[in-house]
Amino acid sequence: MISKNAFYAQSGGVTSVINASACGVIQTCREHADKIGTVYAGRNGIIGALTEELIDTSRESDADIAALMKTPSGAFGSCRFKLKSLDENRREYERLIEVFKAHDIGYFFYNGGGDSADTCYKVSQLSAALGFPVQAIHIPKTVDNDLPITDNCPGFGSVAKYIAISALEASFDVASMAKTSTKVFILEVMGRHAGWIAAAGGLIEDYGIPVLLLFPEVDFDQDRFIAAVQARVEEFGYCTVVVSEGARNADGSFLAEQGSRDAFGHAQLGGAAPVVANMVKQALGYKYHWAVADYLQRAARHIASATDVEQAYALGRSGVEMALAGSNAIMPTIERISNKPYRWQIGSTDLANVANVEKTMPLDFITKDGFGITDACRDYLYPLIQGEAYPDYDERGMPRYVILENALIERKLGDFEL
Amino acid sequence: MISKNAFYAQSGGVTSVINASACGVIQTCREHADKIGTVYAGRNGIIGALTEELIDTSRESDADIAALMKTPSGAFGSCRFKLKSLDENRREYERLIEVFKAHDIGYFFYNGGGDSADTCYKVSQLSAALGFPVQAIHIPKTVDNDLPITDNCPGFGSVAKYIAISALEASFDVASMAKTSTKVFILEVMGRHAGWIAAAGGLIEDYGIPVLLLFPEVDFDQDRFIAAVQARVEEFGYCTVVVSEGARNADGSFLAEQGSRDAFGHAQLGGAAPVVANMVKQALGYKYHWAVADYLQRAARHIASATDVEQAYALGRSGVEMALAGSNAIMPTIERISNKPYRWQIGSTDLANVANVEKTMPLDFITKDGFGITDACRDYLYPLIQGEAYPDYDERGMPRYVILENALIERKLGDFEL
Repeated sequence: MISKNAFYAQSGGVTSVINASACGVIQTCREHADKIGTVYAGRNGIIGALTEELIDTSRESDADIAALMKTPSGAFGSCRFKLKSLDENRREYERLIEVFKAHDIGYFFYNGGGDSADTCYKVSQLSAALGFPVQAIHIPKTVDNDLPITDNCPGFGSVAKYIAISALEASFDVASMAKTSTKVFILEVMGRHAGWIAAAGGLIEDYGIPVLLLFPEVDFDQDRFIAAVQARVEEFGYCTVVVSEGARNADGSFLAEQGSRDAFGHAQLGGAAPVVANMVKQALGYKYHWAVADYLQRAARHIASATDVEQAYALGRSGVEMALAGSNAIMPTIERISNKPYRWQIGSTDLANVANVEKTMPLDFITKDGFGITDACRDYLYPLIQGEAYPDYDERGMPRYVILENALIERKLGDFEL
Repeated sequence: MISKNAFYAQSGGVTSVINASACGVIQTCREHADKIGTVYAGRNGIIGALTEELIDTSRESDADIAALMKTPSGAFGSCRFKLKSLDENRREYERLIEVFKAHDIGYFFYNGGGDSADTCYKVSQLSAALGFPVQAIHIPKTVDNDLPITDNCPGFGSVAKYIAISALEASFDVASMAKTSTKVFILEVMGRHAGWIAAAGGLIEDYGIPVLLLFPEVDFDQDRFIAAVQARVEEFGYCTVVVSEGARNADGSFLAEQGSRDAFGHAQLGGAAPVVANMVKQALGYKYHWAVADYLQRAARHIASATDVEQAYALGRSGVEMALAGSNAIMPTIERISNKPYRWQIGSTDLANVANVEKTMPLDFITKDGFGITDACRDYLYPLIQGEAYPDYDERGMPRYVILENALIERKLGDFEL
């Protein structure tokens, strides 16, 4: 077997564990130095390949690569850049392959969501057609948990854990103050198309906490929602609401877009939580508080799920092992074997099955009233948040998150206009 | 010494460590059962004393009381209820003392901020005047860190740690995506009158992160702020902003009040972060994201500061020991001995020195441009966030937070109208 170099890139929104996948890829490549030469990483994701900004990861120490296991965000930079279709912009794909050829890259590990699975698939096909076959492996990653085939996606478990714990802690706070203060607490979470993350907020019901979930999958009905809030406040003295940023009205418009304007009449972006809070205030007069977790949730490496970290690493490692075994155009997946005890194994699927397919919540995960999760959903979620994978802290009390050197190699090709 | 009962109440906004103070009070009382009989706790704070809703803490197991060390919020309930002045509403104070007398309560441990220090002081004075002297001890607590005399207030260190870590993690996220996505991230934190919590966000500068702080102490100047954001984005590619909910314009108006209206023209409450985000968008066109931490920050027991938990407990314990030594109308305090290594001890001060005095940030803690913290501030803050005091987790991956039985004792007096 002739040794080829590898290219690794991070794609789309980063997570608290995507660097654990990077760690899995790079460590496994280092263990197979006879078959895989240098691992180059794209500076800011696939853009780095197009512009030939390649990071030489061999210059990073073993200790720093190991520290990626405990560092959130994308250590090499990521990007939101979707390659157009082959018909629309064949030159981008040809450029990628030109860069791979120039740097003798035979392995392409692309770490992302649905769009990057599609890109990965095309690179595999086109590189073969152009006579420079590259083995393209997609490593799944997305807090949205919306990739098909795989039981779950790395990044999601840690967000779910963070949201469940945060909603729990805030609910304890509200419960202890509700007599004279806040009665309704609203937490806005990510999830533009699917309610996976909001569902995690439903786990706090197991502590006896009254919680209402607003999913993108369920048309928002203001009257029913207000009645549900009132019923819970009257019974428990307070109520927690977890609203998906993608919660929407029956006409398809987002709650977050609902007519908030600044003093100049400009539409203001963002914030399903304040919209819901205002609704509660107008209808019921209850004192409320709201929080928007935003990036805090997907970056919260300080309380990552141990299951999630382990799976993110295993998928990176398996991707390399599958490439070494000759696989191409595939994605390693998580296969669930059992819930109690939780057991899982690595599987794989052809990228043709993954590209452009979005997995939403099964309908039997949502209660009939649309505001809660079922036992089936609980059984699915709990294993994914099992275990606490803490980062290390320095003596000052701050996390030891690594910042890599990220030295670029010398370019061999001309400029490329993005 | 004749054994008397004790009364303990939690006051005002709860924190992630106020229950650690409760644990210190109750455990220490249990160790001195020869001198202190039953510890009663006010259901929902001082309101529970007025309405004679007294929780019998002796019914809680040692294990559950110990679990308070690791449980956020107010385990007995707290309230926002300020007793009026003696002139205005003497009947409230008289009722308190009547309830204390009915239940043979000789010790009053009041766990709160400035207002409760004042109440505590008055109870001590009036009870003596009425011939039923109660030893009143104030246990400090407030995330606002605004009590005088004591070097710092329990609750603050954990919020500071949470905000520093959250701002760090979100900044790592933004840094890795800034090439094609969000360039400015805005995190809103608590602090209506003082910028202590926002200051903690400034610690991330030590990672080389460009961060701007907006303090209540510094008049907001939009042009200077926009120029500062632009300079940082041009130099670093991105910028993080930590804005205090109490940030205000030169005319004294809060940024959060700045003219956000819903579709019906109603003023919308809340959110300095979206206001600042919109400002950045209008002036510079940068893509932004914003988060509002709200209760998440003060309830975040999952990443509490070990220093903070230890001090909260020590202050509860010391309060009881001081009472047993005969003290009255005092507050145990934290005295800082040295920064490196951090050493502290328990001191105390007369409540007359505490009541109605608010401690704001020293001006030499804020940089000259008003957007950052000085080394003096860093030296002050770091010791307070030292160490990670994690809660226990169950096998499902959720925290083991205790919910007490909170059984009320039988009432002996008639109703009381609040």
